[in-house]
Amino acid sequence: MGEFEYIRWIRQSTPAWPRVLVGPGDDCAVIEPPAVVGGKGGPLLVTTDMLLDGSHFVLAEVGPRRVGRKAMAVNLSDIAAMGGRPLAAFVSVGLPRNNANASAAELYLGIRELADAFSTPIAGGDTNSWTGELVVSVTLLGEAGFQAPILRNGAKPGDWLLVTGTLGGSILGKHLDFTPRIAEALQLQQQAPIHAMIDISDGLTADAYHICEESGLGLVLCAEQIPISEAAGRMNDARTPLEHAMTDGEDFELAFAVAPEDGARLVRTQPIDGIMLAHVGVFVGEKGLFLEQARTRRPIEPRGYKHPFA
Amino acid sequence: MGEFEYIRWIRQSTPAWPRVLVGPGDDCAVIEPPAVVGGKGGPLLVTTDMLLDGSHFVLAEVGPRRVGRKAMAVNLSDIAAMGGRPLAAFVSVGLPRNNANASAAELYLGIRELADAFSTPIAGGDTNSWTGELVVSVTLLGEAGFQAPILRNGAKPGDWLLVTGTLGGSILGKHLDFTPRIAEALQLQQQAPIHAMIDISDGLTADAYHICEESGLGLVLCAEQIPISEAAGRMNDARTPLEHAMTDGEDFELAFAVAPEDGARLVRTQPIDGIMLAHVGVFVGEKGLFLEQARTRRPIEPRGYKHPFA
Repeated sequence: MGEFEYIRWIRQSTPAWPRVLVGPGDDCAVIEPPAVVGGKGGPLLVTTDMLLDGSHFVLAEVGPRRVGRKAMAVNLSDIAAMGGRPLAAFVSVGLPRNNANASAAELYLGIRELADAFSTPIAGGDTNSWTGELVVSVTLLGEAGFQAPILRNGAKPGDWLLVTGTLGGSILGKHLDFTPRIAEALQLQQQAPIHAMIDISDGLTADAYHICEESGLGLVLCAEQIPISEAAGRMNDARTPLEHAMTDGEDFELAFAVAPEDGARLVRTQPIDGIMLAHVGVFVGEKGLFLEQARTRRPIEPRGYKHPFA
Repeated sequence: MGEFEYIRWIRQSTPAWPRVLVGPGDDCAVIEPPAVVGGKGGPLLVTTDMLLDGSHFVLAEVGPRRVGRKAMAVNLSDIAAMGGRPLAAFVSVGLPRNNANASAAELYLGIRELADAFSTPIAGGDTNSWTGELVVSVTLLGEAGFQAPILRNGAKPGDWLLVTGTLGGSILGKHLDFTPRIAEALQLQQQAPIHAMIDISDGLTADAYHICEESGLGLVLCAEQIPISEAAGRMNDARTPLEHAMTDGEDFELAFAVAPEDGARLVRTQPIDGIMLAHVGVFVGEKGLFLEQARTRRPIEPRGYKHPFA
């Protein structure tokens, strides 16, 4: 299968989507933009993530299908972190030349699995093979959900920090198989104004600190309230399950700031089916990151998963 | 320089653009969509190209700056081929770990050079280093120019095929240093309705044949009228300069279909400063690709530059 046959195969196996005015096969895709509200087009969300063999996955261990799934999932998670809805995905790949055909089809099926689950058309991309290892780059467009795009800079002193689900030990499997929290982020917006939001990719402390930096605030994390995953307890290394929950990356849960009264209500009513909301901290005017444990408060470093850069 | 420092450097050296509502540094960029016309948002153009060391360039020979320039240029060329204007670019890179810092800055400067020349904000991306070779993936958003997006499927029997500039031998340098024909495509739309357009990346015959396939037509190319570049004459191999002009890839000139009366006027008036328009063929109802040379017509294969896939 050459490039043109592969593109033909993708075109044939791609359903028609009403908002994709021109799909794969021309110089550009043509997409219907976000709906017009009050005379203005809705803001367009754009995110892009590149996954590299040996850095973000080990192809020989996980196979191309799970790589494709993850490549789509991490981008959906970024749209979720803005409170948005996905609009169209663009997928570029560099395939190892020795096994391009099998990888290409499996990778595409993994991407499609999650794209279909989130009603996201794959509207274009670029397919290459080369002498290097597998690289997948997905760019995802989205539009706002029920609120304006939810940034990292909107937290206020006194706001509660809540997280979805449980944290830590994602390396045991969740980093590949997680569900991006698109639906949950939309449900939350119908419950309360979300002041700031991020998805937990670098680790709870590191990502919470991103909100602090952008909002010009500090945060007190409450050790006893951090939801520790079952996987964190199975890590069996020198670090405690709590440390894993606080610093492991790639859980792709949501961390978000809401007014304290909204936070209290959300934790009490637990409005999201099957996903627990936990109150893990309180934003404060004093800059820095603090951990409250056994009734004592101490400053901590916002360290988390280090990206393999430089 | 780690990932966060690099992102900070990019943020600091990125000017504010009115249509980039949120730039690098949040979960997604937020872009103001195409203007509303007649109650509807204008269509959104999206293109993406991935460049890989050893396939699309040889880093050791050309250096990261020219790679960055080319990565932006090929995407701008795709927007030009739709008759569009660029809106915002997203740049993802996998940097070879042994030399990530120097490459990153030079690459970014090469990208910025062309982005600035075409008033295109770099609104986001993803930066990684890995054990593999350099990979750069750019996704470019755009909006329509003076006409609706110009597709490949609008050529009509009797239309003339015109090309900008001269063709062949781009491997001697133009494939790295070409100017994407954004301005020219906009000027052309003010001169005449463009029925179909493509940029010449696979080679004249291959790309012209893409228009034929999508429009359900055939094409007669006139050998004597194909504009042969000076570089094609310097190739010095078994193929003639005409063969180079017909089949070499990566000239990134425009090939477009217009009504015969418009074509004749464009060739006569040469309305584009410094860029010659040449009449290279006529679309016909009979499918296939034909070459007319010394008053005889014979069918030819639409072969061109083969993408290094499978």
